[in-house]
Amino acid sequence: MIIILKPNCSEEQLTHVLEKIEEFGLKHDVSQGEHRTLIGVIGEEDVVRNAPLRAIPGVENVVPVLKPYKLASREVQREDSAFDVGHGVTVGGGSLGMIAGPCAIEGEDVLLEIAKSVKAAGANILRGGAFKPRTSPYSYQGMGEEGLKILRKIGDELGMPVVTEVMDPRQVELIDKYTDLFQIGARNMQNFNLLTEVGQTKRPVLLKRGMSATVEDLLMSAEYILANGNPRVILCERGIKSFDSSTRNLLDLAMVPNCKGLSHLPIIVDPSHATGRPELIPSMALAAIAAGADGVHIEVHCRPEEAMSDGQQALLPDQFAEVMEQMRKLAEVCGRTIPKPSSN
Amino acid sequence: MIIILKPNCSEEQLTHVLEKIEEFGLKHDVSQGEHRTLIGVIGEEDVVRNAPLRAIPGVENVVPVLKPYKLASREVQREDSAFDVGHGVTVGGGSLGMIAGPCAIEGEDVLLEIAKSVKAAGANILRGGAFKPRTSPYSYQGMGEEGLKILRKIGDELGMPVVTEVMDPRQVELIDKYTDLFQIGARNMQNFNLLTEVGQTKRPVLLKRGMSATVEDLLMSAEYILANGNPRVILCERGIKSFDSSTRNLLDLAMVPNCKGLSHLPIIVDPSHATGRPELIPSMALAAIAAGADGVHIEVHCRPEEAMSDGQQALLPDQFAEVMEQMRKLAEVCGRTIPKPSSN
Amino acid sequence: MIIILKPNCSEEQLTHVLEKIEEFGLKHDVSQGEHRTLIGVIGEEDVVRNAPLRAIPGVENVVPVLKPYKLASREVQREDSAFDVGHGVTVGGGSLGMIAGPCAIEGEDVLLEIAKSVKAAGANILRGGAFKPRTSPYSYQGMGEEGLKILRKIGDELGMPVVTEVMDPRQVELIDKYTDLFQIGARNMQNFNLLTEVGQTKRPVLLKRGMSATVEDLLMSAEYILANGNPRVILCERGIKSFDSSTRNLLDLAMVPNCKGLSHLPIIVDPSHATGRPELIPSMALAAIAAGADGVHIEVHCRPEEAMSDGQQALLPDQFAEVMEQMRKLAEVCGRTIPKPSSN
Amino acid sequence: MIIILKPNCSEEQLTHVLEKIEEFGLKHDVSQGEHRTLIGVIGEEDVVRNAPLRAIPGVENVVPVLKPYKLASREVQREDSAFDVGHGVTVGGGSLGMIAGPCAIEGEDVLLEIAKSVKAAGANILRGGAFKPRTSPYSYQGMGEEGLKILRKIGDELGMPVVTEVMDPRQVELIDKYTDLFQIGARNMQNFNLLTEVGQTKRPVLLKRGMSATVEDLLMSAEYILANGNPRVILCERGIKSFDSSTRNLLDLAMVPNCKGLSHLPIIVDPSHATGRPELIPSMALAAIAAGADGVHIEVHCRPEEAMSDGQQALLPDQFAEVMEQMRKLAEVCGRTIPKPSSN
Repeated sequence: MIIILKPNCSEEQLTHVLEKIEEFGLKHDVSQGEHRTLIGVIGEEDVVRNAPLRAIPGVENVVPVLKPYKLASREVQREDSAFDVGHGVTVGGGSLGMIAGPCAIEGEDVLLEIAKSVKAAGANILRGGAFKPRTSPYSYQGMGEEGLKILRKIGDELGMPVVTEVMDPRQVELIDKYTDLFQIGARNMQNFNLLTEVGQTKRPVLLKRGMSATVEDLLMSAEYILANGNPRVILCERGIKSFDSSTRNLLDLAMVPNCKGLSHLPIIVDPSHATGRPELIPSMALAAIAAGADGVHIEVHCRPEEAMSDGQQALLPDQFAEVMEQMRKLAEVCGRTIPKPSSN
Repeated sequence: MIIILKPNCSEEQLTHVLEKIEEFGLKHDVSQGEHRTLIGVIGEEDVVRNAPLRAIPGVENVVPVLKPYKLASREVQREDSAFDVGHGVTVGGGSLGMIAGPCAIEGEDVLLEIAKSVKAAGANILRGGAFKPRTSPYSYQGMGEEGLKILRKIGDELGMPVVTEVMDPRQVELIDKYTDLFQIGARNMQNFNLLTEVGQTKRPVLLKRGMSATVEDLLMSAEYILANGNPRVILCERGIKSFDSSTRNLLDLAMVPNCKGLSHLPIIVDPSHATGRPELIPSMALAAIAAGADGVHIEVHCRPEEAMSDGQQALLPDQFAEVMEQMRKLAEVCGRTIPKPSSN
Repeated sequence: MIIILKPNCSEEQLTHVLEKIEEFGLKHDVSQGEHRTLIGVIGEEDVVRNAPLRAIPGVENVVPVLKPYKLASREVQREDSAFDVGHGVTVGGGSLGMIAGPCAIEGEDVLLEIAKSVKAAGANILRGGAFKPRTSPYSYQGMGEEGLKILRKIGDELGMPVVTEVMDPRQVELIDKYTDLFQIGARNMQNFNLLTEVGQTKRPVLLKRGMSATVEDLLMSAEYILANGNPRVILCERGIKSFDSSTRNLLDLAMVPNCKGLSHLPIIVDPSHATGRPELIPSMALAAIAAGADGVHIEVHCRPEEAMSDGQQALLPDQFAEVMEQMRKLAEVCGRTIPKPSSN
Repeated sequence: MIIILKPNCSEEQLTHVLEKIEEFGLKHDVSQGEHRTLIGVIGEEDVVRNAPLRAIPGVENVVPVLKPYKLASREVQREDSAFDVGHGVTVGGGSLGMIAGPCAIEGEDVLLEIAKSVKAAGANILRGGAFKPRTSPYSYQGMGEEGLKILRKIGDELGMPVVTEVMDPRQVELIDKYTDLFQIGARNMQNFNLLTEVGQTKRPVLLKRGMSATVEDLLMSAEYILANGNPRVILCERGIKSFDSSTRNLLDLAMVPNCKGLSHLPIIVDPSHATGRPELIPSMALAAIAAGADGVHIEVHCRPEEAMSDGQQALLPDQFAEVMEQMRKLAEVCGRTIPKPSSN
């Protein structure tokens, strides 16, 4: 932590700042520049971070030096995290999680049809929403527990781990019975009580980046889960807000290598929500793999025009199979492996 | 709703689109332009809004004509909403809610000291956080129920309604026992389950705008509360994300007249979180009143450098009293009234 | 300037960094923290600012301490700048510049009609575009020199200084013959050659903030003009880009007190371009005055539906007169003065 | 163009709107909905686009149906544009332009050293700035004509076409003597007079996207060049502004397939300016190729810590050679070809 004093900071004020630092059990190192006095604060930055140092008279600015997250940090763990997410599927450390499925679970037949098609194309994790966060109270809100049962049944039938969104701390116990991974949606990335709850389970968590979250914000939300004892967090980039409305959101692929430098956690990219336009999804899925992502998350529907939610951004099974094939070739060139679809 | 077809849309595709519209029980009106065919969809827009029309082959774009919110809309209710928020204080319709207090409740003595000072300056609603949404799991998380008790006690002692944040559906019942208004924080603006819960209480709700929420997003979140039976929602502008980090957030004052045109709900402005810099708060509080806001929300602390949370953005009691005095004069010129502080 | 070294920075790298600093004729002050080593760089920051210190191996980050602008800075000049802009009108230091007129000059009769109306309402500077920066090559591009002649003539007739946009360094000489103030539009805020050219004239410059310019970017562009010898720059906030398309741009009123803290230059607010919606302009004009602005810039047209450019955002003369009257009352309460309209 | 009328629009107002449309020589098609009346405007949209229809009383909104650009549009030209940019190098239609070189030309020896290294790695276009747009008037501004001579000489020596930035319409004639391609920088993307000037030359133009330009804005700027007679425009994505300052800008790779759908013009991606961090450039260069870009633009310097400009974001020659090798393999998988470096 560096404290920059105002140009007109008095001797008394300086003394007061130094006393405050000592009160926190920290040391200081004053550096008198030509135009400004700087104070290096030496010791555990966490202690200082929570102190309102900028509120002390004479202080112009406070510059943090260390990152505010620890468990999520590459400095704490050098090697990539990789872990089993169910049914023998590993995500991280070169193993790619290929998540696919419909936006919402709409019934057993339609989910089975979609699940079979994405599995045949090589997807290794099945997604489907039972509780849907909808902007409008008048929109379809999901099948609830009935949907969870269907998802679990089909996941087991096909031997695929399943992921579904949890929106409310009160749903954690229920969903925990049926799912392999929890998904935390973009709108709940800073729902700290929900993060705490899933942090106290033993299930891996797919944590989606909030629409206006910085990379540091995302890693701090991961830290909540890690600090509560659950080390299995997968970050997910799904686009952020921008001034150009020609795509639904703005996909930030540079966050992939950026996060990889800062954190050991795996990162998956969701080009479906990021673009909201099926014709852009394949290119962005390929770019995600090239950028170093540990997988993708793509919405697929057999009959998008009949989908209960977000049909306009779903790929058809054929389109999904085609982009899977291209990603497989690309991954190979990049030294990673997307498993071949099983022949059954 | 207007459907714009692709330039190369076939006759078959057009027929299919029209059939789909009829399936929803709606009428259509086809308009053949020189370069594009347009279809006006006539009937209840809500029905169509949830249908994935953009997923139908041949459709280029779908343009909504009506707003997706109803109960929050100025079209449904022409006159301004105004309602009692406790202890005889009305917000809306020319009556201003002047909310002040510390970021976090830190103890009875310090809250009483702050509360007395803001009341003496003319504040008519007392704020204080007992459950704090903190970006870091290692930061101070609030006093919990003990804090709520202190807040209630001091509110009653001074005859001020109190407002405190609710972060979790599970806290609604507890907080409901102690508070006059619920605050929904920016990070929870799209926590739909929480909105639903507070919508089922009888308490007014101070709904803060999310950091990347459009005005329509905010009104849709208000609609969740209204649709659940609670008509008393106060909107709150507290700054949105921007590319300029010289202020904590970017205060969007144009949203005040913008919302007033679209909705009958009162709007309060929070210059404390919007700027994060005490020296900018007074000007922005004055500008908020001039822009037509129904009140302000300002953080005040007697000793900011000792505050447990956000001390760096708190005004001192003297600074608050001064800006209250200026706002009072300004409001008068603008034809509204900020009540004089009581003499006791 | 503070240099933060990487955690694994070697002794050799540190030595190399220190040598580099000495090469620039600067001193250094090394502070060994628990987790990071910091180097305070002492001396003229400008010298260091241009050196690629971040490119030196072992350097993690470089934190500037001083502002990169000097002449524009409040540290160099404590008191507000105020200057004559023609016909005895002063802007700055409590004197407000009330700029009004049509987007484009469309002919003598229509300009005279508009100019008389805005003058009668109390405007003291007349605006009108002769060279128009249009997004489309197929849109109306302005009357050129003929327009300038009309503007000059009417300005002199009514005793009002005039302001018009300059888009091209090659136009500076021509426009200089006719105008009192140069306007630099938002799209040209970082057209450094144009800034240099107007910096070499003796005319005041109305410098509009770019759509994605930070406050620091704006002040750096002002610095270009000042450094070329022209001290008379008026900053102009006209809205920046945001994710909410319900207004044309996002008006950033907090930049007014923010800039006033950093710089002595006057600041004018343009609610017309900021909102693009006539019904929002009056509130934002009032808010601008309350926020401490040194004036406003408002587009007015007698028959907006016949305007050659931006008619949809013009106020009618009556609407303008009404908001002028309100601003006058507001300014009085805020301790500033908007001159009464002359009775002739 | 669709005109949406206000719910309370009177018969008289409707008649007035229809008369206005007829005045422009256009036809109309009125569609009476349950809640709103819509008017489809039939005819040349350009005529209407410039009319201030939103300023007519009773009009709520105006929705354009057609794109405002024509020559740049995929509707006008179905097949990809591809053209020679000098020395037999083609860009577009599957041929990739691999642009590399230093930010600024600093002297003959250093440019030759860099140019040889990037050519050996497979770059086929050499870049170097002679006139530099610098945020600060106190920063290095470039070598000017002397730099251009050096660039030309080395380009010819190595058989590489060269590209350099033009910032001012007055420089066009001079730079035209020395360069193969003009570069228009991000800050000048809407410098319409400069676009017009380069549109009147016969040289290809590398048009960089402005920091807050939508894809439509970029295509409109390309349209300026095309409408002036120069069909050879290469679009360039170089990152836009965002709220996350951990990268210099935010690379928008989805704009590549997005633009490809809308326009036939080639698109090149610049990961150097987009990220500003050398460690992120390789991944983003690979992702750009995977996304379908027609090439990349990468800054390279032999000794970044001595660079006169932007040294902190330059790749070393070895790093560049490595990413070129990876891009070559990737391009092959994607069905495109990056030529092998020549052996001389």
